[in-house]
Amino acid sequence: MSIIRVGSELKYDVRQATVLLFRIAAANTPHQKLISEQLHFNPQLQVETLDLGSDGNRAHRVLVQPCKLQITYEATIELAPEVGNSANLNESTSAHIPADVLPYLNPSRYCESDLLGRFAFEEFGSLALGYRRVQAICDWVNQFLDYTPGSTNATTTAADVLLMRTGVCRDYAHLAIALCRGIGIPARYVSGYAVNLDPPDFHGFIEAFLDGKWFLFDPSRLSQVNGLVRIGTGRDAADVAFATINGNAALTQKSVWAAHADNSSPPAPDLQTAISTA
Amino acid sequence: MSIIRVGSELKYDVRQATVLLFRIAAANTPHQKLISEQLHFNPQLQVETLDLGSDGNRAHRVLVQPCKLQITYEATIELAPEVGNSANLNESTSAHIPADVLPYLNPSRYCESDLLGRFAFEEFGSLALGYRRVQAICDWVNQFLDYTPGSTNATTTAADVLLMRTGVCRDYAHLAIALCRGIGIPARYVSGYAVNLDPPDFHGFIEAFLDGKWFLFDPSRLSQVNGLVRIGTGRDAADVAFATINGNAALTQKSVWAAHADNSSPPAPDLQTAISTA
Amino acid sequence: MSIIRVGSELKYDVRQATVLLFRIAAANTPHQKLISEQLHFNPQLQVETLDLGSDGNRAHRVLVQPCKLQITYEATIELAPEVGNSANLNESTSAHIPADVLPYLNPSRYCESDLLGRFAFEEFGSLALGYRRVQAICDWVNQFLDYTPGSTNATTTAADVLLMRTGVCRDYAHLAIALCRGIGIPARYVSGYAVNLDPPDFHGFIEAFLDGKWFLFDPSRLSQVNGLVRIGTGRDAADVAFATINGNAALTQKSVWAAHADNSSPPAPDLQTAISTA
Amino acid sequence: MSIIRVGSELKYDVRQATVLLFRIAAANTPHQKLISEQLHFNPQLQVETLDLGSDGNRAHRVLVQPCKLQITYEATIELAPEVGNSANLNESTSAHIPADVLPYLNPSRYCESDLLGRFAFEEFGSLALGYRRVQAICDWVNQFLDYTPGSTNATTTAADVLLMRTGVCRDYAHLAIALCRGIGIPARYVSGYAVNLDPPDFHGFIEAFLDGKWFLFDPSRLSQVNGLVRIGTGRDAADVAFATINGNAALTQKSVWAAHADNSSPPAPDLQTAISTA
Repeated sequence: MSIIRVGSELKYDVRQATVLLFRIAAANTPHQKLISEQLHFNPQLQVETLDLGSDGNRAHRVLVQPCKLQITYEATIELAPEVGNSANLNESTSAHIPADVLPYLNPSRYCESDLLGRFAFEEFGSLALGYRRVQAICDWVNQFLDYTPGSTNATTTAADVLLMRTGVCRDYAHLAIALCRGIGIPARYVSGYAVNLDPPDFHGFIEAFLDGKWFLFDPSRLSQVNGLVRIGTGRDAADVAFATINGNAALTQKSVWAAHADNSSPPAPDLQTAISTA
Repeated sequence: MSIIRVGSELKYDVRQATVLLFRIAAANTPHQKLISEQLHFNPQLQVETLDLGSDGNRAHRVLVQPCKLQITYEATIELAPEVGNSANLNESTSAHIPADVLPYLNPSRYCESDLLGRFAFEEFGSLALGYRRVQAICDWVNQFLDYTPGSTNATTTAADVLLMRTGVCRDYAHLAIALCRGIGIPARYVSGYAVNLDPPDFHGFIEAFLDGKWFLFDPSRLSQVNGLVRIGTGRDAADVAFATINGNAALTQKSVWAAHADNSSPPAPDLQTAISTA
Repeated sequence: MSIIRVGSELKYDVRQATVLLFRIAAANTPHQKLISEQLHFNPQLQVETLDLGSDGNRAHRVLVQPCKLQITYEATIELAPEVGNSANLNESTSAHIPADVLPYLNPSRYCESDLLGRFAFEEFGSLALGYRRVQAICDWVNQFLDYTPGSTNATTTAADVLLMRTGVCRDYAHLAIALCRGIGIPARYVSGYAVNLDPPDFHGFIEAFLDGKWFLFDPSRLSQVNGLVRIGTGRDAADVAFATINGNAALTQKSVWAAHADNSSPPAPDLQTAISTA
Repeated sequence: MSIIRVGSELKYDVRQATVLLFRIAAANTPHQKLISEQLHFNPQLQVETLDLGSDGNRAHRVLVQPCKLQITYEATIELAPEVGNSANLNESTSAHIPADVLPYLNPSRYCESDLLGRFAFEEFGSLALGYRRVQAICDWVNQFLDYTPGSTNATTTAADVLLMRTGVCRDYAHLAIALCRGIGIPARYVSGYAVNLDPPDFHGFIEAFLDGKWFLFDPSRLSQVNGLVRIGTGRDAADVAFATINGNAALTQKSVWAAHADNSSPPAPDLQTAISTA
């Protein structure tokens, strides 16, 4: 159990009446409890809170008239992850994957697991099944890609980065997800806050479904999984953009922060420790 | 209100222990009531029924040992669609799209609305908003593409068919969905049975979200929307394959049928009539 | 006949021994005669001049040690194009296309005419054959695309811009070439200088093979075809990059200019006038 | 030196006046001499022979009225390859690649070396330069891909097969070419006859430019390089299709054969032996 403080500040130049949808609030789940939370809009606005599915994900929607808009979010989170022994975590067989998990086996816009199925099988098909196989995929992705800010864009897919061998956290996540799905392991994209991310920003990582639970992995290795605070989950980044804009508004400033409450940095989980917060 | 009888028969050569997931059963909703239904597996198997979400979609999952497998499905459906006047159906503004509809604005594997946004706006952005705009998109897709069996495959996307200008019902649906999403109209893929489809087969068509409801469209024009029986809905065809195979099984025969109960063919709905069964 | 003065100045920061290949010198052909020409490298270098094929194209190759490199090119050109009456120019039938022109019917890296064949036929297959059909393709491309600097990059293809509907002169040229080839008209990419280009830069346009000659077209409409000075020709932009760098050198400045000798701007050729300088 | 007999028989159902261009005749070069050759068309036709560039490549063009067309080609070839010691063959530096070889460094339709440059450097950038590096690329391609007839089609590219990890000889060649170009080694596609190919067919392989000469490699390993008879060379398969059809003609039969004159099978060249016939 640990306490994490997260926050973000966004500024927009809104040039006409615009609908903005924000996915910046930490999810509230049994394993990730909101101790306190503040969301401020300046100017003040009528804010609609949308519950997105069963994973505690939320979005906030506002209709904004032309203005300089500032959004500030701050939250204190108690992280009480379920901890498993990675050596004992098996893959769920296709006969036992629950109905609501099935969609995370399907290919999605940025994770073309249908194209990469053979690739995934050739590279990872003969490894022992279980948590360690997902870890092997994440390790492989981490080795295979060069982390290069600016090398990719919003339409870059897992197949693209497999060819280009470069990307950012979003791309690392997409490729790892596509490879997991390609060998029959449900996997999904998680957006969130990450302690000690450098440079600080919203982060993208993944969850894989093993032994009936969703376990966290960060293929980019830019954060420790015990320092991740979930905002939202989706099939890929398309589902969890931190802001969706309908109208005309330009982001002019973005600050993001996350830290352990006492500014201590707990050690990274050892290789035995699997962490689930879903 | 009308009565439709639908059915399908599938045969597989199962060569090793295999998990099969079928999406062939008609959805059971207030507007599409199951009067009777029979699903037979030969040899007999323990069948798990999966409820897939809130739209009455179901899947059936079986674990099969090596055998010659035959699946027969038959159902009698009472279709009681909600009927709207197409001239009065408006688009839902982005401020009012419900949370559970939002994902159908996102790009998906076979509907790259992110890539086609400008295309959609240039072609359809200046048309009057509403049902008629979706109809215009479907008409355009129908004119633009050549219907050519065998011209595309399971990995073909909306962007592909926009370039190649040829496809089958699945591709027509994907392109229409991508263009709808591209101009901000939620749209999704529907698999189902279709009366008078020639040659008979499972069919793929679409729903667009207008004035708070999902309305049916068939961009392929191979069927009338008052003769469509929903099996499942998804972001695109990836979500509603009629069979998903994990193991080793080959489809050796497929028959599909659908007819109005009295074998009459009611006239196609006129241009004023919008039909919703979701 | 007209006199055009062209020039360019490039500066590089060369960080290690690097081989640079420049394609910035005007081609010297019967219809585009070099009256005078100066090419300076600072520091002075041993320059190898490469003759590239039969169209008067040249490249200059240097091996450069770490330095601040400056290249200045200036030339005075007498343009004596062959002028045809566009109404009388027919397409060459496939039985009569010369051997050295055949490759320009094949798809190339940025002009996927194999993918776009049906598209080309559906849009342009029923038009009267001849120069006017190429003009119709260029008009269509010009209408279809939005000119947006920065919207595309060095790997963007004709298929990409057909989907995205935006690009720069290079992309306009690629799409027009792909559509020409798609209906059986040989077409190629031309890099060059263009009078009155705004902002001034190297330009990309096309040639189509009609009645046994290569005729000039500018799908971007950013220049008049009687103000174009050819540097090189190729299957697409891949063949005529103004600089190819092997080593480590960064472009730090680029200036390009082109003007009629007396700074007059002759009127654009009328619709009857087809211009060939190859 | 060896004698090889090659041949092919093609039958077409020609349904309207059609121009056919065949690339089925063996090239005639100092290292691959035509001892005898016969090309028959039934019905008899006026045949135009096209010389395609400087490598001895030829094509034959005919205009055919509706008929059942049969083409028979037979040739006896004396192969007198230049033989090098692979251990001594270096790569040509970019400062010394001849002008006519430069285009084979550029990306082409089916060999996207611009996309795969980083991939190539990461996998092969640190290997010792020279013939052995090309051999390493061919070995890697051979290991990486599964040979699966029917898995790809005429528009499949090197990037596609790198993702899908399956293909036929054409795809093996395209991927090897793209990777060579990606690390600065000129490479091109060769179509030809291959002794002992099973099943017999036209074959696709590659040449890489080393120490001033083009050397043969077969990434598919379906043939020995001392049993290859060149028909044509090109940037990729787009340039050397065995038949190009303008009109309406369907291939109804294709037979291809190639054998050493005495039906002996000389041993494969050892790893020291590099073979050049260009």
